[in-house]
Amino acid sequence: MAEIRVMRKVLASNDALAASQLEQLDRNSVFGVNIMSGPGAGKTSLVERTIEALGSKYRVYVIEGDIQGSLDAERVAALGVPVTQINTQGACHLDGLMMSSVFPGIDFSQVDLLLIENVGNLVCPAEFTLPVHCNVTIISTPEGSDKPVKYPLMFTKSDIIVINKIDLLPHVDFDAEELSRAVRKLKPDIPVIRMSTKTGEGVDGWISWLEEKLTGRKEGQGRLS
Amino acid sequence: MAEIRVMRKVLASNDALAASQLEQLDRNSVFGVNIMSGPGAGKTSLVERTIEALGSKYRVYVIEGDIQGSLDAERVAALGVPVTQINTQGACHLDGLMMSSVFPGIDFSQVDLLLIENVGNLVCPAEFTLPVHCNVTIISTPEGSDKPVKYPLMFTKSDIIVINKIDLLPHVDFDAEELSRAVRKLKPDIPVIRMSTKTGEGVDGWISWLEEKLTGRKEGQGRLS
Repeated sequence: MAEIRVMRKVLASNDALAASQLEQLDRNSVFGVNIMSGPGAGKTSLVERTIEALGSKYRVYVIEGDIQGSLDAERVAALGVPVTQINTQGACHLDGLMMSSVFPGIDFSQVDLLLIENVGNLVCPAEFTLPVHCNVTIISTPEGSDKPVKYPLMFTKSDIIVINKIDLLPHVDFDAEELSRAVRKLKPDIPVIRMSTKTGEGVDGWISWLEEKLTGRKEGQGRLS
Repeated sequence: MAEIRVMRKVLASNDALAASQLEQLDRNSVFGVNIMSGPGAGKTSLVERTIEALGSKYRVYVIEGDIQGSLDAERVAALGVPVTQINTQGACHLDGLMMSSVFPGIDFSQVDLLLIENVGNLVCPAEFTLPVHCNVTIISTPEGSDKPVKYPLMFTKSDIIVINKIDLLPHVDFDAEELSRAVRKLKPDIPVIRMSTKTGEGVDGWISWLEEKLTGRKEGQGRLS
């Protein structure tokens, strides 16, 4: 039982840390987004599309989480957006402790939108709260429509679900209606948006949703703090 | 540091448990295979294809690992092969303790090939040794060819890599040569096999490789014990 006790303590202390980091974002009217998915579902592509659409209107900052390497951070940096790479050195998720190692180096008074790309994993990232206002989970069509049944916590913890790679629909066995039904069984009112970060189709739905949140956030400064 | 100490203890005790379970397989000349991948890369499809090819020559037993639900176990049972479902109740991997909860219910004297399908996750399953003779990692083409750089441990711990969903190659950005090079940087002599579990193309390469191991195993009974 020792491991379970330690794990509970870790999660509780992570929650407290994330809450105080979220206050820091709120004091600066920064809107934080945590992007989660399995490997290769399109997290970095969603970050890129979001920067393309909103980068001229809002000051975007990106934190990239990877076990090792900086491939994704390089893609973001190529768009001229400030980015910090966290290498988790084997850990399967980002958490508050890792954020506390990079937050002091970021001037949040110069940021409107913080995009945090989590480690590619449909399990563990859902357990560790991050300092954000919204959790996004991406499912790509080649993964199949049964994922909410197999990875329920990830969907329960999310505020919006993105179905990505709809350009592959003619070539894969994927039932978007089945996935939406399974998601809504876990979380009845959650929005489910279909897109292809490759062709750009449907990305506008995500951008509208995000911009509404961003605008509300800026108008109600300190509302959540 | 308390968590790190506990984690090391957990891994060491898991290794010991898996070693004693492997002896049980060896006493019964059972060849064990641990199948790992991210979500939806084709683990269950590989299990199905393997049963189709070898089910009439070898007595196959399947252990299915999922956080919850039994969708994959139902697919295997439909092929007339005995299967046990492990629900990890949130845990991100299978381990020796979970095996010890199901091994006593399996008559290994009636089994030649044990296929263990791990939880869909490219990180954590690599850390927990299972009672098997071979670890397989599947990467599907839509995930991209950069995965060995991002999830190195999974590839280092594997004995063979399967590139699945090659039927999607015309529609996705995937460089099989780049992936092979990255894999061999981590593990120079590891075989990398390309296939489509959907069309069946290339599955024979996997079956030949596995059958060679299986035959060697049966001839050298007790060799590894």
